[in-house]
Amino acid sequence: MENQNLLPIFIEKLITQLNKLPGIGSKTAQRLALSILKKPDGYIENLVDSLNKVSTDVRLCMECQNYCEDDLCLICQDEKRNPNSICVVEDILDLIAIENSGVFKGKYFVLHGLISPLNGVLPSNTKVDLLCKKLNAVSEPTELILSLNSTSDGDATCHYINESLKNDLISISRLASGLPFGSDLDYLDSRTLSQAIENRKSF
Amino acid sequence: MENQNLLPIFIEKLITQLNKLPGIGSKTAQRLALSILKKPDGYIENLVDSLNKVSTDVRLCMECQNYCEDDLCLICQDEKRNPNSICVVEDILDLIAIENSGVFKGKYFVLHGLISPLNGVLPSNTKVDLLCKKLNAVSEPTELILSLNSTSDGDATCHYINESLKNDLISISRLASGLPFGSDLDYLDSRTLSQAIENRKSF
Repeated sequence: MENQNLLPIFIEKLITQLNKLPGIGSKTAQRLALSILKKPDGYIENLVDSLNKVSTDVRLCMECQNYCEDDLCLICQDEKRNPNSICVVEDILDLIAIENSGVFKGKYFVLHGLISPLNGVLPSNTKVDLLCKKLNAVSEPTELILSLNSTSDGDATCHYINESLKNDLISISRLASGLPFGSDLDYLDSRTLSQAIENRKSF
Repeated sequence: MENQNLLPIFIEKLITQLNKLPGIGSKTAQRLALSILKKPDGYIENLVDSLNKVSTDVRLCMECQNYCEDDLCLICQDEKRNPNSICVVEDILDLIAIENSGVFKGKYFVLHGLISPLNGVLPSNTKVDLLCKKLNAVSEPTELILSLNSTSDGDATCHYINESLKNDLISISRLASGLPFGSDLDYLDSRTLSQAIENRKSF
């Protein structure tokens, strides 16, 4: 940035920190930092307070690795949910998206990242092995729904999980690939279209 | 948001605080909060530290109302700058934009807001009266460049400053209105074009 001597050093430091967040470029970081300065009294205190709480109090659920305050997250505490249907997601945003769809009534497992051989992300960098250990110990028939992105990393992770499970009680499925709702065939990429044709359903 | 029971309450609070920043909607706030959680150790501490410093240490320059750490900002401390040429800007982002253009070598005055009769922002809600008081006490010929946005609020503020100055030593100018560099006449709005015609310069 060109304006190195125009702002006090601690405002520059705040801009640097904000600039590290995803989707926040240097201009946006500058605008955010200066708008934080203009906020009414108490705003910065509240923001600092929630950052401190997030930094110290957040834990991962023992069962599903979702964020929580106690040993178990709110979903794992819910006895109405089916413990024999487990939906595997990459991160919490995916979990929230599936919850908002309202279709799934089982429990979750959050991997906190996908295996990515090209980027050097090994199974040990994610929670994949924890999932496999948990599933290999299951004693009731359990459905595993792999809700991972339809990318090469998603494919690699699904493949690894499938290979690692030695328990016959687990049935594995993956989210359907095909046309998104409201899509126009003209504008779809050829891979989506070819998967939609391969996976066609009798009417 | 629909996911009220999915995240621990302190993550929700962080999302609420981030959601109050300009240009950060609820989805982006969620993504930022969760990416803050995933940052390496020390990130939240650094962010909290700079927020605390900004909250306690930032002051307004006695001379020009720019943000600074001491009594005077870095620009007002610079003796090479011409004190008899004062550029009036709405906020620090405008100051930075003008500094980056590299053309202006005088000093600044930051209004921290424009007079906006329609939104109930009176001169007393900005630093306009402080500027006028400062200029009415000037004892050397001084050039005042009103670098305010070309909007109705900018016009109202320029008009108010012009009316309030009782000092014959001050000469007032305003930034030129006309074609932006690289513009295409076809795509310009009619007000810009009419101003460019009215303010035409002999070639």
